[in-house]
This record gives sequence, C-alpha cells and structure tokens, in this order.
Amino acid sequence: MLEALKEEVYLANMQLVEKKLIINTWGNVSGIDREKGLFVIKPSGVEYSELKPSDLPVVDLDGKVVEGSLRPSSDTPTHLCLYREFPEIGGITHTHSLYATSFAQSGHGIEAYGTTHADYFPAGVPITRKLTDREIEGEYEYNTGIVIAEAIRKYGADRMRAALVNSHGPFTWGKNAAESVDVSYVLEVIAQMAFNTELLVSANAFRQTDKIQQKLLWRHFDRKHGPNAYYGQKKK
Amino acid sequence: MLEALKEEVYLANMQLVEKKLIINTWGNVSGIDREKGLFVIKPSGVEYSELKPSDLPVVDLDGKVVEGSLRPSSDTPTHLCLYREFPEIGGITHTHSLYATSFAQSGHGIEAYGTTHADYFPAGVPITRKLTDREIEGEYEYNTGIVIAEAIRKYGADRMRAALVNSHGPFTWGKNAAESVDVSYVLEVIAQMAFNTELLVSANAFRQTDKIQQKLLWRHFDRKHGPNAYYGQKKK
Amino acid sequence: MLEALKEEVYLANMQLVEKKLIINTWGNVSGIDREKGLFVIKPSGVEYSELKPSDLPVVDLDGKVVEGSLRPSSDTPTHLCLYREFPEIGGITHTHSLYATSFAQSGHGIEAYGTTHADYFPAGVPITRKLTDREIEGEYEYNTGIVIAEAIRKYGADRMRAALVNSHGPFTWGKNAAESVDVSYVLEVIAQMAFNTELLVSANAFRQTDKIQQKLLWRHFDRKHGPNAYYGQKKK
Amino acid sequence: MLEALKEEVYLANMQLVEKKLIINTWGNVSGIDREKGLFVIKPSGVEYSELKPSDLPVVDLDGKVVEGSLRPSSDTPTHLCLYREFPEIGGITHTHSLYATSFAQSGHGIEAYGTTHADYFPAGVPITRKLTDREIEGEYEYNTGIVIAEAIRKYGADRMRAALVNSHGPFTWGKNAAESVDVSYVLEVIAQMAFNTELLVSANAFRQTDKIQQKLLWRHFDRKHGPNAYYGQKKK
Repeated sequence: MLEALKEEVYLANMQLVEKKLIINTWGNVSGIDREKGLFVIKPSGVEYSELKPSDLPVVDLDGKVVEGSLRPSSDTPTHLCLYREFPEIGGITHTHSLYATSFAQSGHGIEAYGTTHADYFPAGVPITRKLTDREIEGEYEYNTGIVIAEAIRKYGADRMRAALVNSHGPFTWGKNAAESVDVSYVLEVIAQMAFNTELLVSANAFRQTDKIQQKLLWRHFDRKHGPNAYYGQKKK
Repeated sequence: MLEALKEEVYLANMQLVEKKLIINTWGNVSGIDREKGLFVIKPSGVEYSELKPSDLPVVDLDGKVVEGSLRPSSDTPTHLCLYREFPEIGGITHTHSLYATSFAQSGHGIEAYGTTHADYFPAGVPITRKLTDREIEGEYEYNTGIVIAEAIRKYGADRMRAALVNSHGPFTWGKNAAESVDVSYVLEVIAQMAFNTELLVSANAFRQTDKIQQKLLWRHFDRKHGPNAYYGQKKK
Repeated sequence: MLEALKEEVYLANMQLVEKKLIINTWGNVSGIDREKGLFVIKPSGVEYSELKPSDLPVVDLDGKVVEGSLRPSSDTPTHLCLYREFPEIGGITHTHSLYATSFAQSGHGIEAYGTTHADYFPAGVPITRKLTDREIEGEYEYNTGIVIAEAIRKYGADRMRAALVNSHGPFTWGKNAAESVDVSYVLEVIAQMAFNTELLVSANAFRQTDKIQQKLLWRHFDRKHGPNAYYGQKKK
Repeated sequence: MLEALKEEVYLANMQLVEKKLIINTWGNVSGIDREKGLFVIKPSGVEYSELKPSDLPVVDLDGKVVEGSLRPSSDTPTHLCLYREFPEIGGITHTHSLYATSFAQSGHGIEAYGTTHADYFPAGVPITRKLTDREIEGEYEYNTGIVIAEAIRKYGADRMRAALVNSHGPFTWGKNAAESVDVSYVLEVIAQMAFNTELLVSANAFRQTDKIQQKLLWRHFDRKHGPNAYYGQKKK
C-alpha cells in the first residue's frame, strides 16, 4: 500500500541525516496521500542506518495504524493534528536541529533580520505558547499540534512553513515530504544567522574601540599589496 | 582474560574518536565485569590510532592491575571510585568534549532548557564542588570520583548518568561501556544547545529592534513566491 | 561565444560550493570581457550540481542577454551596476556566507581588528546604507549596486574589494571571477574572527575571576610534565 | 644540505593543513639544527598543495639564506629572533588559527580555566604588548620576536610554549617542528574552550530563569525511561 509514498517519505527521512539536521533518532518526516486520507511516517526509535521504506507505518486521519508492524513515531499525533488543521500541507518534518532548537529553548521566535530569511518566510518564524500542565498531562503530542496551529493560523500554512515549539524544537511542512525537509534545512541556517546577529547587536551595546593600530594595518596591507611588497615570491 | 569485555571496551573507546568527542588522548572508557569484580580500561597516553583490544589492562576493585603490561589511564582511580560507589553502573566514559568542558570551566552545571535534555536526563546535569587543596594534593583522581558521587547521589546513577567535574570536564556512565559513550555524545550536543540558549537569553536582555525593513522583506519573499516571482527559471 | 570566460566563471561558481560559502542556490559569480563589454553570470535558481559552463548566459552592459536560453541570476543588475561604476573590476561574487551575512544583518561593517584583516583590506569592510522604500520598490537590484558603489568609492574598488549590503549579505570583486571568490572566502573567515573578537571584548566587560585553582593547575601540569609525571607509559 | 630536517619541517608544515589550523598560506613552520646553527622554514606565499621538501630554504642565525632559490617566509625574522633568544627551542609554528587569533585580536591572553589547559601550559597563555609605531616601521618582523620573548621570559620557553602576538595571532614552539605544531593544535582547542567559558560566565551575569517546565521535563523523560515508556519499539 502506498509504496511510492513510502519511498518518497523514506528518502526525505534519510535527508535529515545527510543534511546533519539530526543525530540518533531525533527527528521524523511524514507525507500524506490526501485522496486516500492516509499518511506514512517514520517508525519510532528505529536507527536511520537500519531504516527501510517498507518499515514505514501507514496511519489514517483518525490516528489508527492501517498498515505496518512497527509503532509509528511518538510524535505521530502532532503530525495528525497538523494534517487535520491544514489541508494545504502534504508533508511534515520534525527535528531537534541545533540552532532552531536553541531558539525554541530561549523562548523567542526567529526574527526576520535579512533577505535570506525573507526569501523563505513572510515574517519572523513564530514560537508557540507554552503548553499548560493540563495539556502536557493529557494528549500531549496532539496538543503540541494545536499550539503550532494557533501560532501559524494568521499567516496560513502555505506561507508560513515553520514554527518553533516552545522548550522543544522546530516543525516544518510543505507541499510534500521533500519540501518540508528543505524548509527545515533552510530554517537551521537562518536560525544560526539570527543567533549570530543577536549576539553581534548585543556585543555592540558594549563595543569598545580596540581596532588594529593604523600603522600595523598599513604595514601588513603594504607588505602584500604595496609597491614594495615582500610577501610571496618575486613575480616572473 | 575477559577478551569479550576488552573488545567491547576497545570499540567504545574508538567511538570517542568517531564521534569527535576527543582529540589526541583526551579521554578514556572502561567497562566492568561485576561477577568477577574486574574492569577493563584504556591504557594511559596511548594514541587511539595504535590502540588494540589486547592493550587494555584489567584492574580489580582494589585498583590493582591484574593483567596487562601497560599502565592504565591516569584517571583509573576515578573510575574505580565510581564503580565502588554505584553498583548499578557497568561502563564509564571521560572526555574533554568542547561544550561540556566549557560548562565545567564556567563553574555551572547544564540546566534543563528543553525536551532534548529531558529525553535523557531527569534534571539539570550537576557540576561537582571544587576539590579542596588537600583533596588535590592527596589521592586526587580518587577524590574526583568522590565529588562526582556527592553530586549525583540524590538522583541515583541509573537516572542521572552524567556529571561535570568543576574546572575539568564531563564523566558519564551507563549499563555498559557503549551506553556510557552514547550519553557522552548526547551530553555534548545538549551542552551546545544550552550554551546557545544562555547566550540568546542574555543577548535578548539587550535586544535592539533591528529587523529587516518590511518593504525589503516583501520584495524578497515576493520575488521568489509572489504572483510575479522572477527568481529562477520559467516553469515549463 | 566567450567559451573560455564561461569555463572560468563556471569554475569560480563551483568554488562557492567547494569552499562552503553557499548552500542551495544562494550565490552567484560573474566575470567580464572588458574589450567586448560582455559579462557571463550564473543562471537564476539552477542547482549547482546540475550547472554546466554552456548554461551561463552572456549579458551586455545594457543588461540585455545576448546569448543563452536561461534567465541570468536575479542579482544580475547589481553586477551590471558594479561593472559600470568600476572599470577596474573583472569579476564579482555574491554569497550569503554565514558570518559575513550575520554582520550585514547586524547593521555593522567588519572592523579591522588584526593583521589577518590587514593582509587583505586597507580598512574595515564597509556596510551600505539601507535602501529607501522607493529604491526597494523601483530597480531594487540595480539600486543595490548603487549603494555598494557609494560605500566603497572613497577606497577605490581595486583596494577595497568587498562590501556588506545592509540587511542582506556580502558582495566581493577582483581582477577576475576567481579572485572575487578568493576575497569572499577570506572575508568569511575574517568575519568569523571579528565576530569572536567582538564577543570576547563584550564578555570581558563582565569578566569574573573564575580561573582554575593554582593547586589544580600544577597537579595537572606536573602529572604530565613534572619530575614525577605519571601520565602515559614509562619511557623506554 | 639538511635533507632530513627539510623532510621533517615539510611534514610539520603539512600538518597545519591536515589539522585545519590554516587556510591559504596563512602559517609557517620552521625547525633548527642547533649544531650547524641553521634553520629550515617554509618559503613565502607558496601554496601548501604545491610545496615540496626541497623548496624549503635554509637560513643561518644571521638571517642569511644559505641554500634555496625561494624567498623564506616573510615571518622569518620572527623565527630567527626566537631561535636566538631561546636556545632550548628546536621548532616554531605560526598560524592564524581561528580562536587563538580571535583572542589575539581581543587584546587578552588565554586564561587558564581548566585542566585541559593545565595539561599543557603552566599558566595563562600570555599576550604580547602592542608594538610601538617605531617598532612597526623598523624591523617589524624581528621586533615581533622581541615582544614575544619579553612576554614569555619569566616562564621559560621550555615550559610556556606559546604566546599570542597582540592584534595578530599565535606563535608556538617546542623541542622540534612537530612538537611546535602539536602545541598549536592544542592551543586552538583550548582557546575555543576559553572563548566558550568567558561567554558563559558573561551570559550568566544576566541569567534569567527560563528552564523547561517540570511537567514537560518529566513527560519526556518518562516517555523514554518511565514504566509506561512509549518511545521506540516494544522490547522483544
């Protein structure tokens, strides 16, 4: 059942390793067949090096496993919730990638600081509110989907393709599984740029003039580029 | 003697290099046979590229080398102390991995900032108190085990599988040598996430609004995703 | 037409991937034949893994594509503007490399903090002013070239071979395409050094004494280097 | 002449690339034959990928090239000065490695924050004073050796095997060329640890409590490790 989709979702999962977005089993990708109302997702806790397309369970939109002998990812209810809330999405990725997760842990979303960000997202990437104790004790993973939906509804899931779950990490999505991984990849790079930017701006609040001495600057520039340059070998 | 254990501990030691947790000879792994009361540990100062399973000395719980012609790691008394204090552990790893060591040097443990941490540790990873001058002058390496034991006793060594030695670096443990390396690997990633998180939170105390201009944001988003997008090639 | 130049510009583009200055299609290199008044540039949105020298469009100094079936880079008008403004340059590179882009996003240029910088640039690398809303709405990419020209004119494009576009990222140039990539590569390393320097100087404004205890320092130094060193194996 | 020493110094130079301590031609290693009073050093500006042992010039302790057709490194007078000042050293390395150079640019030496540092250096790694304008205008490279000598004399060059040249970068040395490279390698790692440590200590001056919620911590720990764990596959 859904062999082509399994292959597609399998390949998308393997991209998480290839693009260094995960270590161990810290992530999962799913993809949905909207006509059949069934999605395929990584099985829980299976090492990526041992994963095969045929291992991927098929789940329906009631959350019931309709094919496969392995348990689906423990985050399956989050995927389920997002597929229900946003009919426009066809694939979902969850990782604990380093910089995006660091922002999630800091309690702040990722502000739009530059055009790299603007090329992919129409605003800062939102962070969810914290779950209540009740939400954590209850259907925790499904409720994680709910707070994501709250955070992105105003943008639309086709335009804002990422959110950070507070104290947790990033979820991304797209037209299909592969696109959701692409967005995760870009999100991680943009998160690192934003991290650097915030640190630079903060450091500059305490900027102290400690530039190189003008004499030393010229000495080095001239020994390579000046009329009497003596770095390197004589030009033939 | 204990050839299977030597092989297991050898492979666990080689994982330190593979997972980039050490350079040079900056780390060691041991594993214990609880029935025989003997443990196997990396020899001191031997390059990883030259290490063989048969090089690994066998040490008893009095700290005496009972087999092997090479000196055991200079940190052997720390391992010995932990094996004595915590009968539930079967393997121990010590590294100077970058971020975990940076926390150890900062004098602070690693707070639990997110679910990545919570997936492995039931609280913040504790840091030991500083050793007294007397403890440093005396059985320094054994006393290092003592302060680790003090720091983790309240959690139990089966639940809290890591501690940072103040001004030094991380020790981790587990059911066996391989698990102790796995915990070291995860600890290093979690330490980097916590590092990033603390820097972001601190930078945000001085956050200055310097977001991208709204016009520029839309110009870039639209040149890729808008109705008149002109980035890339024409769709066929 | 211009097959040798296409090959040269193709190879320069591929260096962006090799030197990890870009991911995806986040950059482009061009090179000009000054006698003919024609330049060759990467086509827009084409994956680097699929790029061939013959794909590269040829553009004249009115911005018209005179050869090639693929659209040139969406940043082509920026290159065009720089070739017009500075007859001394023969090749241009644009990337979104991590640290240089982080500075561009922070709104600050890269100060000259050391001799590594001085070996390549005769002053701090300038950052452009922000574009006005009008400039963004109009010939946005050409206007990007205009603000770069404003920022570097006082140095001369042969001496100052880089600028950061505010809220965007770096442009570099040189005698030819290859040199412009070399400058991008060095700029990224210098940006990371300047990033580290600013963070260290800022952290030191709050420096707290937490050095290692003198006893512990000597214990470790002596166990490796002292007369009674016990680290490593006995010297034969 | 000195073929064995040339081979040794060549191999030490190539280690700079292997250990990622340099890019381009940003470093050099030399080694001395004390009996003959001659040293061998990397030629200036030659790409590492093209370097051969026979390319290395031989220089005497008056700074005169006694063999070789290529110009020696532009930093040769610094090496010369150190060989004259410290008869106990047999090899010298200069790099612009990232973190050590960042400290040099910040104007601060590298404090001893932990045992990793203590395993190699008997105190914080010193930074030189800034050169005077006169020293820069004069025998600049030789004067660089002079300020290094001033900075380390109180420790002895056999014990303190590194110094940071202010606004420039690290020099290291040892019994021979290979050891001087080993010290450069360790220095870079220790510099990164010290960088992280200073940032953590500074961030903690503004530490804000934003730990993970206790409920969420337990939910995640228990879904993996608790009695009703539901992460991963059922144990067989």
